[in-house]
Amino acid sequence: MSKSSLTLPKILNKSIVACSRFFQIETLQLRFSNGEERDFERMKGSKQGAVLIVPFYDKDTLLLIREYAAGTHSYELGFPKGLIDPGETPLEAADRELKEEVGFGAKEYSVLKKVVMAPSYFSSEMTLFVANDLYPERLPGDEPEPLEVIKWPLSKADELLARDDFQESRCISALLLVLKDLAQNNDIN
Amino acid sequence: MSKSSLTLPKILNKSIVACSRFFQIETLQLRFSNGEERDFERMKGSKQGAVLIVPFYDKDTLLLIREYAAGTHSYELGFPKGLIDPGETPLEAADRELKEEVGFGAKEYSVLKKVVMAPSYFSSEMTLFVANDLYPERLPGDEPEPLEVIKWPLSKADELLARDDFQESRCISALLLVLKDLAQNNDIN
Repeated sequence: MSKSSLTLPKILNKSIVACSRFFQIETLQLRFSNGEERDFERMKGSKQGAVLIVPFYDKDTLLLIREYAAGTHSYELGFPKGLIDPGETPLEAADRELKEEVGFGAKEYSVLKKVVMAPSYFSSEMTLFVANDLYPERLPGDEPEPLEVIKWPLSKADELLARDDFQESRCISALLLVLKDLAQNNDIN
Repeated sequence: MSKSSLTLPKILNKSIVACSRFFQIETLQLRFSNGEERDFERMKGSKQGAVLIVPFYDKDTLLLIREYAAGTHSYELGFPKGLIDPGETPLEAADRELKEEVGFGAKEYSVLKKVVMAPSYFSSEMTLFVANDLYPERLPGDEPEPLEVIKWPLSKADELLARDDFQESRCISALLLVLKDLAQNNDIN
Protein backbone atom coordinates (compact mmCIF):
# COMPACT_ATOMS: atom_id res chain seq x y z
CA MET A 1 0.00 0.00 0.00
CA SER A 2 1.46 3.32 -1.07
CA LYS A 3 2.02 6.03 1.48
CA SER A 4 0.25 8.69 -0.58
CA SER A 5 -3.04 6.81 -0.63
CA LEU A 6 -3.08 6.93 3.17
CA THR A 7 -2.85 10.72 3.34
CA LEU A 8 -6.35 11.80 4.28
CA PRO A 9 -7.92 14.51 2.14
CA LYS A 10 -7.98 17.95 3.72
CA ILE A 11 -11.40 19.24 4.80
CA LEU A 12 -11.43 22.76 3.29
CA ASN A 13 -14.92 23.56 4.48
CA LYS A 14 -17.95 21.89 6.01
CA SER A 15 -21.49 23.01 6.64
CA ILE A 16 -24.91 21.60 7.55
CA VAL A 17 -27.07 21.78 4.42
CA ALA A 18 -30.28 20.16 5.69
CA CYS A 19 -31.63 18.90 8.97
CA SER A 20 -34.73 17.33 10.44
CA ARG A 21 -35.68 16.10 13.89
CA PHE A 22 -33.40 13.02 13.64
CA PHE A 23 -30.97 13.67 10.80
CA GLN A 24 -28.36 16.26 9.90
CA ILE A 25 -26.84 16.32 6.43
CA GLU A 26 -23.40 17.85 6.18
CA THR A 27 -21.49 18.83 3.05
CA LEU A 28 -17.69 18.55 3.03
CA GLN A 29 -15.42 20.36 0.61
CA LEU A 30 -12.36 18.11 0.29
CA ARG A 31 -8.94 18.39 -1.31
CA PHE A 32 -7.33 15.00 -1.94
CA SER A 33 -3.57 14.53 -1.69
CA ASN A 34 -3.33 14.54 -5.51
CA GLY A 35 -4.84 18.04 -5.58
CA GLU A 36 -8.28 16.89 -6.75
CA GLU A 37 -11.15 18.76 -5.06
CA ARG A 38 -14.63 17.33 -4.48
CA ASP A 39 -17.75 18.00 -2.45
CA PHE A 40 -19.06 15.04 -0.43
CA GLU A 41 -22.26 14.75 1.58
CA ARG A 42 -22.56 12.78 4.77
CA MET A 43 -25.05 12.26 7.58
CA LYS A 44 -24.24 13.31 11.10
CA GLY A 45 -25.52 10.54 13.34
CA SER A 46 -25.81 9.92 17.03
CA LYS A 47 -22.36 10.51 18.59
CA GLN A 48 -23.00 7.81 21.18
CA GLY A 49 -23.50 5.08 18.59
CA ALA A 50 -25.73 2.04 18.90
CA VAL A 51 -25.78 -1.55 20.10
CA LEU A 52 -27.19 -4.84 18.81
CA ILE A 53 -27.55 -7.95 20.93
CA VAL A 54 -27.65 -11.63 19.88
CA PRO A 55 -29.44 -13.23 22.87
CA PHE A 56 -28.97 -16.95 23.53
CA TYR A 57 -32.18 -18.22 25.15
CA ASP A 58 -30.36 -21.51 25.66
CA LYS A 59 -27.29 -22.98 23.97
CA ASP A 60 -29.31 -24.06 20.91
CA THR A 61 -31.80 -21.17 20.62
CA LEU A 62 -31.58 -17.49 19.76
CA LEU A 63 -34.19 -14.84 20.45
CA LEU A 64 -35.35 -12.63 17.58
CA ILE A 65 -37.78 -9.76 17.48
CA ARG A 66 -40.25 -8.88 14.78
CA GLU A 67 -40.67 -5.12 14.45
CA TYR A 68 -42.17 -2.58 12.08
CA ALA A 69 -39.50 -0.84 9.96
CA ALA A 70 -40.54 2.52 8.52
CA GLY A 71 -37.74 2.65 5.90
CA THR A 72 -39.07 -0.42 4.11
CA HIS A 73 -42.67 -0.12 5.49
CA SER A 74 -42.57 -3.79 6.44
CA TYR A 75 -42.26 -6.09 9.44
CA GLU A 76 -38.69 -7.32 9.78
CA LEU A 77 -37.05 -10.09 11.79
CA GLY A 78 -33.87 -9.13 13.57
CA PHE A 79 -31.98 -8.87 16.82
CA PRO A 80 -32.81 -6.34 19.53
CA LYS A 81 -30.92 -3.07 19.08
CA GLY A 82 -31.00 0.60 19.88
CA LEU A 83 -29.13 3.84 20.39
CA ILE A 84 -26.80 4.34 23.34
CA ASP A 85 -28.28 7.00 25.63
CA PRO A 86 -26.07 9.89 26.79
CA GLY A 87 -24.00 8.76 29.78
CA GLU A 88 -24.45 5.04 29.07
CA THR A 89 -21.67 2.63 28.16
CA PRO A 90 -22.35 0.31 25.20
CA LEU A 91 -22.72 -2.58 27.68
CA GLU A 92 -25.30 -0.70 29.76
CA ALA A 93 -27.22 0.17 26.59
CA ALA A 94 -27.17 -3.47 25.48
CA ASP A 95 -28.54 -4.64 28.83
CA ARG A 96 -31.27 -1.95 28.81
CA GLU A 97 -32.33 -2.68 25.21
CA LEU A 98 -32.50 -6.41 25.92
CA LYS A 99 -34.77 -5.76 28.91
CA GLU A 100 -36.95 -3.29 26.96
CA GLU A 101 -37.29 -5.21 23.72
CA VAL A 102 -37.10 -8.86 24.78
CA GLY A 103 -37.93 -8.88 28.49
CA PHE A 104 -34.66 -10.47 29.59
CA GLY A 105 -31.45 -9.35 31.22
CA ALA A 106 -28.21 -11.31 30.75
CA LYS A 107 -25.48 -12.22 33.21
CA GLU A 108 -22.86 -12.45 30.47
CA TYR A 109 -22.19 -10.17 27.52
CA SER A 110 -19.32 -10.39 25.06
CA VAL A 111 -18.43 -8.14 22.13
CA LEU A 112 -18.48 -9.70 18.66
CA LYS A 113 -17.28 -6.68 16.66
CA LYS A 114 -17.84 -2.99 16.10
CA VAL A 115 -19.41 -2.21 12.74
CA VAL A 116 -20.57 0.77 10.71
CA MET A 117 -23.43 0.86 8.17
CA ALA A 118 -21.81 2.69 5.27
CA PRO A 119 -18.65 4.62 6.14
CA SER A 120 -18.91 6.72 2.97
CA TYR A 121 -21.99 8.44 4.35
CA PHE A 122 -22.34 7.69 8.07
CA SER A 123 -20.06 7.76 11.09
CA SER A 124 -22.25 6.06 13.68
CA GLU A 125 -20.75 2.90 15.10
CA MET A 126 -22.70 -0.10 16.33
CA THR A 127 -21.27 -2.58 18.86
CA LEU A 128 -22.49 -6.15 18.28
CA PHE A 129 -22.90 -8.16 21.50
CA VAL A 130 -23.69 -11.76 22.36
CA ALA A 131 -25.78 -12.21 25.51
CA ASN A 132 -25.74 -15.44 27.53
CA ASP A 133 -27.22 -16.67 30.80
CA LEU A 134 -30.53 -14.80 30.47
CA TYR A 135 -33.01 -14.08 33.28
CA PRO A 136 -36.48 -12.54 32.96
CA GLU A 137 -36.59 -8.79 33.57
CA ARG A 138 -38.63 -6.25 31.66
CA LEU A 139 -38.09 -2.51 31.35
CA PRO A 140 -40.70 -0.31 29.66
CA GLY A 141 -39.71 0.65 26.11
CA ASP A 142 -40.99 3.36 23.80
CA GLU A 143 -42.33 1.07 21.06
CA PRO A 144 -45.73 1.99 19.60
CA GLU A 145 -46.86 -1.65 19.81
CA PRO A 146 -45.55 -4.71 21.68
CA LEU A 147 -42.64 -6.39 19.90
CA GLU A 148 -43.07 -10.02 18.98
CA VAL A 149 -40.27 -12.16 20.46
CA ILE A 150 -39.44 -15.36 18.57
CA LYS A 151 -37.34 -18.35 19.65
CA TRP A 152 -35.21 -19.43 16.70
CA PRO A 153 -33.24 -22.71 16.81
CA LEU A 154 -29.59 -22.30 15.81
CA SER A 155 -30.00 -25.45 13.71
CA LYS A 156 -32.29 -23.41 11.44
CA ALA A 157 -29.85 -20.54 10.88
CA ASP A 158 -29.75 -21.24 7.13
CA GLU A 159 -33.53 -20.83 6.92
CA LEU A 160 -33.25 -17.51 8.70
CA LEU A 161 -30.52 -16.31 6.33
CA ALA A 162 -32.68 -17.25 3.35
CA ARG A 163 -35.70 -15.22 4.51
CA ASP A 164 -36.60 -11.96 2.79
CA ASP A 165 -37.57 -10.37 6.12
CA PHE A 166 -34.16 -11.09 7.68
CA GLN A 167 -32.19 -8.71 5.51
CA GLU A 168 -30.47 -6.13 7.71
CA SER A 169 -26.73 -6.47 7.12
CA ARG A 170 -25.86 -5.75 10.75
CA CYS A 171 -28.13 -8.62 11.88
CA ILE A 172 -26.67 -10.92 9.20
CA SER A 173 -23.12 -10.00 10.24
CA ALA A 174 -23.94 -10.69 13.90
CA LEU A 175 -25.55 -14.06 13.18
CA LEU A 176 -22.69 -15.19 10.92
CA LEU A 177 -20.04 -14.09 13.45
CA VAL A 178 -21.83 -16.15 16.11
CA LEU A 179 -22.01 -19.20 13.82
CA LYS A 180 -18.33 -18.81 12.92
CA ASP A 181 -17.30 -18.62 16.59
CA LEU A 182 -19.38 -21.71 17.38
CA ALA A 183 -17.85 -23.65 14.47
CA GLN A 184 -14.32 -22.69 15.54
CA ASN A 185 -15.01 -23.66 19.17
CA ASN A 186 -16.39 -27.02 18.00
CA ASP A 187 -13.22 -27.59 15.97
CA ILE A 188 -11.10 -26.96 19.07
CA ASN A 189 -13.21 -29.17 21.40
CA MET B 1 -46.81 -15.12 15.57
CA SER B 2 -50.05 -13.23 16.14
CA LYS B 3 -52.03 -11.94 13.20
CA SER B 4 -52.39 -8.43 14.62
CA SER B 5 -48.63 -7.84 14.74
CA LEU B 6 -48.49 -8.45 11.00
CA THR B 7 -51.02 -5.74 10.16
CA LEU B 8 -48.92 -2.90 8.81
CA PRO B 9 -49.53 0.52 10.32
CA LYS B 10 -51.53 2.89 8.15
CA ILE B 11 -49.62 5.81 6.64
CA LEU B 12 -51.90 8.77 7.47
CA ASN B 13 -49.62 11.36 5.93
CA LYS B 14 -46.11 11.71 4.54
CA SER B 15 -44.00 14.67 3.50
CA ILE B 16 -40.42 15.57 2.65
CA VAL B 17 -39.04 17.61 5.55
CA ALA B 18 -35.45 18.17 4.39
CA CYS B 19 -33.41 17.47 1.32
CA SER B 20 -29.93 17.97 -0.04
CA ARG B 21 -28.19 17.02 -3.28
CA PHE B 22 -28.07 13.29 -2.35
CA PHE B 23 -30.54 12.77 0.48
CA GLN B 24 -34.24 13.26 1.07
CA ILE B 25 -35.69 12.98 4.56
CA GLU B 26 -39.33 12.03 4.76
CA THR B 27 -41.62 12.14 7.76
CA LEU B 28 -44.40 9.55 8.09
CA GLN B 29 -47.46 9.93 10.29
CA LEU B 30 -48.44 6.37 11.20
CA ARG B 31 -51.37 4.74 12.95
CA PHE B 32 -50.53 1.27 14.27
CA SER B 33 -53.15 -1.49 14.36
CA ASN B 34 -53.58 -0.96 18.13
CA GLY B 35 -54.61 2.65 17.47
CA GLU B 36 -51.29 4.15 18.60
CA GLU B 37 -50.12 7.06 16.41
CA ARG B 38 -46.49 8.05 15.89
CA ASP B 39 -44.36 10.15 13.57
CA PHE B 40 -41.37 8.35 12.02
CA GLU B 41 -38.57 9.78 9.90
CA ARG B 42 -36.90 7.89 7.10
CA MET B 43 -34.46 8.55 4.27
CA LYS B 44 -35.51 8.22 0.68
CA GLY B 45 -32.64 6.53 -1.10
CA SER B 46 -31.78 5.57 -4.64
CA LYS B 47 -34.73 3.63 -6.06
CA GLN B 48 -32.38 1.50 -8.14
CA GLY B 49 -30.44 0.19 -5.16
CA ALA B 50 -26.80 -0.77 -5.05
CA VAL B 51 -24.42 -3.68 -5.60
CA LEU B 52 -21.35 -5.05 -3.82
CA ILE B 53 -18.98 -7.56 -5.39
CA VAL B 54 -16.67 -10.11 -3.71
CA PRO B 55 -14.08 -10.73 -6.46
CA PHE B 56 -12.08 -13.97 -6.43
CA TYR B 57 -8.69 -13.21 -7.99
CA ASP B 58 -8.02 -16.94 -7.80
CA LYS B 59 -9.59 -19.66 -5.69
CA ASP B 60 -7.54 -18.69 -2.62
CA THR B 61 -7.44 -14.91 -2.99
CA LEU B 62 -9.97 -12.08 -2.78
CA LEU B 63 -9.56 -8.55 -4.10
CA LEU B 64 -10.23 -5.64 -1.76
CA ILE B 65 -10.13 -1.92 -2.30
CA ARG B 66 -8.95 0.77 0.04
CA GLU B 67 -10.98 3.95 -0.36
CA TYR B 68 -11.58 7.23 1.43
CA ALA B 69 -14.87 7.26 3.36
CA ALA B 70 -16.27 10.72 4.12
CA GLY B 71 -18.69 9.51 6.83
CA THR B 72 -15.86 8.35 9.06
CA HIS B 73 -13.16 10.58 7.44
CA SER B 74 -10.87 7.57 7.16
CA TYR B 75 -9.47 5.09 4.63
CA GLU B 76 -11.45 1.87 4.75
CA LEU B 77 -10.86 -1.61 3.37
CA GLY B 78 -13.81 -3.19 1.65
CA PHE B 79 -15.24 -4.76 -1.46
CA PRO B 80 -16.01 -2.80 -4.62
CA LYS B 81 -19.55 -1.42 -4.64
CA GLY B 82 -21.72 1.28 -6.09
CA LEU B 83 -25.18 2.46 -7.06
CA ILE B 84 -27.10 0.85 -9.90
CA ASP B 85 -27.48 3.39 -12.71
CA PRO B 86 -30.92 4.02 -14.23
CA GLY B 87 -31.64 1.33 -16.84
CA GLU B 88 -29.01 -1.08 -15.50
CA THR B 89 -29.71 -4.49 -14.01
CA PRO B 90 -27.93 -5.31 -10.73
CA LEU B 91 -25.67 -7.71 -12.68
CA GLU B 92 -24.70 -5.03 -15.22
CA ALA B 93 -23.97 -2.62 -12.38
CA ALA B 94 -21.79 -5.22 -10.64
CA ASP B 95 -19.78 -5.82 -13.80
CA ARG B 96 -19.35 -2.08 -14.42
CA GLU B 97 -18.30 -1.34 -10.84
CA LEU B 98 -15.79 -4.18 -10.87
CA LYS B 99 -14.22 -2.79 -14.05
CA GLU B 100 -14.21 0.78 -12.72
CA GLU B 101 -12.95 0.12 -9.22
CA VAL B 102 -10.74 -2.95 -9.59
CA GLY B 103 -9.85 -3.10 -13.28
CA PHE B 104 -11.34 -6.56 -13.88
CA GLY B 105 -14.41 -8.01 -15.48
CA ALA B 106 -15.73 -11.44 -14.49
CA LYS B 107 -17.13 -14.29 -16.55
CA GLU B 108 -19.20 -15.60 -13.66
CA TYR B 109 -21.35 -13.77 -11.13
CA SER B 110 -23.59 -15.30 -8.50
CA VAL B 111 -25.87 -13.62 -5.96
CA LEU B 112 -25.07 -14.17 -2.28
CA LYS B 113 -28.04 -12.29 -0.79
CA LYS B 114 -29.94 -9.02 -0.91
CA VAL B 115 -29.43 -6.86 2.16
CA VAL B 116 -30.52 -3.52 3.54
CA MET B 117 -28.54 -1.21 5.83
CA ALA B 118 -31.13 -0.32 8.45
CA PRO B 119 -34.74 -0.98 7.46
CA SER B 120 -36.05 1.34 10.19
CA TYR B 121 -34.64 4.33 8.32
CA PHE B 122 -33.68 3.30 4.78
CA SER B 123 -35.29 1.40 1.95
CA SER B 124 -32.33 1.02 -0.42
CA GLU B 125 -31.44 -2.57 -1.16
CA MET B 126 -27.95 -3.84 -1.97
CA THR B 127 -27.37 -7.07 -3.91
CA LEU B 128 -24.22 -8.90 -2.79
CA PHE B 129 -22.44 -10.75 -5.62
CA VAL B 130 -19.51 -13.12 -5.87
CA ALA B 131 -17.40 -12.71 -9.02
CA ASN B 132 -15.29 -15.54 -10.42
CA ASP B 133 -13.15 -16.13 -13.49
CA LEU B 134 -11.76 -12.59 -13.71
CA TYR B 135 -10.11 -11.00 -16.75
CA PRO B 136 -8.40 -7.60 -16.93
CA GLU B 137 -10.61 -4.78 -18.20
CA ARG B 138 -10.75 -1.25 -16.90
CA LEU B 139 -13.52 1.32 -17.24
CA PRO B 140 -12.97 4.92 -16.14
CA GLY B 141 -14.59 5.66 -12.76
CA ASP B 142 -15.45 8.93 -11.06
CA GLU B 143 -13.15 8.51 -8.05
CA PRO B 144 -11.17 11.60 -6.99
CA GLU B 145 -8.01 9.50 -6.62
CA PRO B 146 -6.99 6.03 -7.83
CA LEU B 147 -8.31 3.26 -5.59
CA GLU B 148 -5.77 0.93 -4.06
CA VAL B 149 -6.49 -2.71 -4.95
CA ILE B 150 -5.26 -5.32 -2.47
CA LYS B 151 -4.97 -9.09 -2.87
CA TRP B 152 -6.13 -10.73 0.34
CA PRO B 153 -5.60 -14.47 0.94
CA LEU B 154 -8.75 -16.26 2.08
CA SER B 155 -6.60 -18.05 4.67
CA LYS B 156 -6.24 -14.65 6.39
CA ALA B 157 -9.96 -13.90 6.58
CA ASP B 158 -9.86 -13.82 10.40
CA GLU B 159 -7.18 -11.11 10.29
CA LEU B 160 -9.37 -9.08 7.96
CA LEU B 161 -12.40 -9.46 10.25
CA ALA B 162 -10.31 -8.30 13.21
CA ARG B 163 -9.16 -5.07 11.52
CA ASP B 164 -10.61 -1.72 12.59
CA ASP B 165 -10.63 -0.50 8.97
CA PHE B 166 -12.75 -3.46 7.78
CA GLN B 167 -15.90 -2.47 9.62
CA GLU B 168 -18.71 -2.01 7.10
CA SER B 169 -21.45 -4.48 7.98
CA ARG B 170 -22.35 -5.13 4.33
CA CYS B 171 -18.71 -6.10 3.59
CA ILE B 172 -18.57 -8.27 6.72
CA SER B 173 -21.83 -10.00 5.75
CA ALA B 174 -20.53 -10.66 2.23
CA LEU B 175 -17.21 -12.08 3.44
CA LEU B 176 -18.89 -14.33 6.04
CA LEU B 177 -21.46 -15.59 3.51
CA VAL B 178 -18.61 -16.52 1.16
CA LEU B 179 -16.72 -18.31 3.94
CA LYS B 180 -19.88 -20.16 4.98
CA ASP B 181 -20.56 -21.29 1.40
CA LEU B 182 -16.96 -22.49 1.04
CA ALA B 183 -17.12 -24.41 4.34
CA GLN B 184 -20.40 -26.08 3.33
CA ASN B 185 -19.03 -27.02 -0.11
CA ASN B 186 -15.93 -28.49 1.56
CA ASP B 187 -18.16 -30.55 3.85
CA ILE B 188 -20.00 -31.94 0.83
CA ASN B 189 -16.83 -32.70 -1.18
